[in-house]
Amino acid sequence: MTERLVVIGGDAAGMSAASQARKRRASSDLSIVAFERGQHVSYSACGIPYLVAGDVTDPDHLVARHPAQFVALDIDVRLSSEVVGISDGFVTVRSPDGEYREPFDQLVIATGGVPARPNVPGALSVGIHGVQTLEDGIRLLGYLDRHAPKRAVVVGGGYIGLEMAEAMIRHGLDVTLVDAADQPMRTLDPDMAGLIADALRREGVTLRLGERLEGFASHAGRVTAVHTTGGEIPADIVILGLGTRPNSDLAKAAGIAIGETGGIRTDRRMRTSRDGVWAAGDCVETFHLVSQRPVAIALGTHANKQGRAVGINIGGGYATFPGVVGTAVSKLCDTEVARTGLSTAEAEAAGFRPYSVVTESTTRAGYFPGARKIKTKIIAERTTGRLLGAQIVGEEGAAKRIDALAVALWHGMTVEEMTSLDLSYAPPFAPVWDPVLIAARKAAEALGSFS
Amino acid sequence: MTERLVVIGGDAAGMSAASQARKRRASSDLSIVAFERGQHVSYSACGIPYLVAGDVTDPDHLVARHPAQFVALDIDVRLSSEVVGISDGFVTVRSPDGEYREPFDQLVIATGGVPARPNVPGALSVGIHGVQTLEDGIRLLGYLDRHAPKRAVVVGGGYIGLEMAEAMIRHGLDVTLVDAADQPMRTLDPDMAGLIADALRREGVTLRLGERLEGFASHAGRVTAVHTTGGEIPADIVILGLGTRPNSDLAKAAGIAIGETGGIRTDRRMRTSRDGVWAAGDCVETFHLVSQRPVAIALGTHANKQGRAVGINIGGGYATFPGVVGTAVSKLCDTEVARTGLSTAEAEAAGFRPYSVVTESTTRAGYFPGARKIKTKIIAERTTGRLLGAQIVGEEGAAKRIDALAVALWHGMTVEEMTSLDLSYAPPFAPVWDPVLIAARKAAEALGSFS
Repeated sequence: MTERLVVIGGDAAGMSAASQARKRRASSDLSIVAFERGQHVSYSACGIPYLVAGDVTDPDHLVARHPAQFVALDIDVRLSSEVVGISDGFVTVRSPDGEYREPFDQLVIATGGVPARPNVPGALSVGIHGVQTLEDGIRLLGYLDRHAPKRAVVVGGGYIGLEMAEAMIRHGLDVTLVDAADQPMRTLDPDMAGLIADALRREGVTLRLGERLEGFASHAGRVTAVHTTGGEIPADIVILGLGTRPNSDLAKAAGIAIGETGGIRTDRRMRTSRDGVWAAGDCVETFHLVSQRPVAIALGTHANKQGRAVGINIGGGYATFPGVVGTAVSKLCDTEVARTGLSTAEAEAAGFRPYSVVTESTTRAGYFPGARKIKTKIIAERTTGRLLGAQIVGEEGAAKRIDALAVALWHGMTVEEMTSLDLSYAPPFAPVWDPVLIAARKAAEALGSFS
Repeated sequence: MTERLVVIGGDAAGMSAASQARKRRASSDLSIVAFERGQHVSYSACGIPYLVAGDVTDPDHLVARHPAQFVALDIDVRLSSEVVGISDGFVTVRSPDGEYREPFDQLVIATGGVPARPNVPGALSVGIHGVQTLEDGIRLLGYLDRHAPKRAVVVGGGYIGLEMAEAMIRHGLDVTLVDAADQPMRTLDPDMAGLIADALRREGVTLRLGERLEGFASHAGRVTAVHTTGGEIPADIVILGLGTRPNSDLAKAAGIAIGETGGIRTDRRMRTSRDGVWAAGDCVETFHLVSQRPVAIALGTHANKQGRAVGINIGGGYATFPGVVGTAVSKLCDTEVARTGLSTAEAEAAGFRPYSVVTESTTRAGYFPGARKIKTKIIAERTTGRLLGAQIVGEEGAAKRIDALAVALWHGMTVEEMTSLDLSYAPPFAPVWDPVLIAARKAAEALGSFS
């Protein structure tokens, strides 16, 4: 008998699961239906800021695969179809043609994240934009085009905030960035975040740090200013970059276990608490391999890996998603920023006794043309020298070095062990001591001084 | 009583050892004398091709530290001073002022490598250049300047050969590259080396592969042609890039144990077979952590690490150099190339049963401006999927990705485990599946098909 697979959510996680399952099981063995409430499947949500900035010239370029490509795999993709309930053996679907039930034997929940929307007066004014979906990006571009705003306020100084600040600069707007914290990029230590604040100021962005959002003023329904605890900031357009929370409401309503982070709980094979029900992507919580605690991190690369694992498992194989070490990368104009593991504050919160060392180096041999600055911060355990986290701020060629640190972290290396790592060296690519090795060396030397 | 440290060789390994020892022990406790037969200490030999190419505009930029800086540390650097013999407790030094003995309690041998010189007729003709020392580089630049050669022949298609081919292209010469093997870059698998051959041809280099050097023709003492098993190649200048062997003759003559590779044998703390005698740099053999066999690899980054370990140990600390995984990187104009671990042939020679997978991807999200091509080859063990080696050929942003693979290799990861690695992702830095992850995924999938 043909087994029935239903997928809720047609983005990275859901469609990876569907594709992998199909790869291993023919239509006669497994029927697949994927419900997507929007108009697009399988697109790069992470690319939206770059669409707005103009790096990507056509929204279609962000679409990895079109519905027709899934149809060719005999995956029944239904757009504008929102799953509004999960019951034993069937889901309830709301579509333009009405509400109906779709039966399943296996279910994948890939409902993504919900962007945080501030609960303040004026939040529904025209001109206040989120940038979560492709539709959001297209709408925002249309708004820029039609209204030619002069002053942009970006609320939230995380990754999306940073990327949208750059996008607004590129459109020639005056940009103000508001964040309730005393620094942008809260996942960085204050000193490294300070370098990002400096970079923002160099690019002409006005920073309003330590100011909480209180509301929006509008005229004829259109936003005219942002009110914060620090005063009024005139605005012709507002971008919200306040992060997302796991969209786990549907699962919760169905009685599926939700974790302390608000994300759906799964095991390493991405099974939820309900038999035959899997979950993947921004809607789940995952395991932080350094803090050994659950975390919810919305990131396309995790969603893809988790979705693939689900698909392999449904397909009869065996695959796991063991967790994350918290790697992330971004840039603001020419300034690159990356991090992995725990920040100092996160390490302390996780019960470690951390110390840290910041080193300055260059991306190539100092004498080689195009050598750029790179600052590397290493956070390690004071008793053992075990690497707990790393942060990089620099220019071209700096950020991707975080990967070697992420793999070292994955293996619980000590900074002393890391000084021996056989990283590639040639003058156009690194100084004879790669910045990662210099950072490890200085961290190992500092450890020696604690005795 | 003050202990006496003598260092033979004033480049990366020797001077790192001297500096580290001084850092930990004051002059009253340890006197340090370093003998260098040339005119320069502590310079980047790896930078010489880039000096010749014009990327580096002043030889002095390659000098990391000048003798005066060591004198300030109370390290007695003696230039033009060649150690010609090691005896119990003293070395014999030949200097412009004559021969003398210098006593030691601790000795560091850091005599570097000897460039392979072809034993063929005409090899001493004017216009045939090595590029090992800073003097070599300066001499070569002078030759280019004075004689304005039109046709260059580079003998040897390894890293130096590749870099010197680019240098000669940059000077506007017609360049021919000769190698006795059927491919350039013998440390790569033939298919990946073929991409480098293609890149050389695209840059206008004539390749003469599978041709053995037989001799040089000259006129009035100056080289006019290169003779190979394939015929005569007219040449106004010849660059030798035939590799180096460990310069272990002095140690051997003193009865210090030499390994099967011809390099000085040491333990992990860089102690030789003789009590109180240490060795570091291109003159030693090291341990390959994947093949578990001794290798001799001349590379500045190893020399620095080994020298540092020696210095820490002499200084009273504890440091080791556990070995290498064979990481290397280079470029030819816009083509980047990197490798780590074992090639397929090396893996077979080491007794593994390897398989390999080549994947093609991009350095950034495919839709992001500046996304460049990258080909990644993974070599893994057929029975376990354990990573044995990796090779990358691509454009800007490709090569340094080898580092994440080198760290994974260091830890003996399987390709299946590697698919979960938390590598950084954002559209300007990687596709949602980083090329390293795609390569691991395809290698893991291929492994599944062997059952």
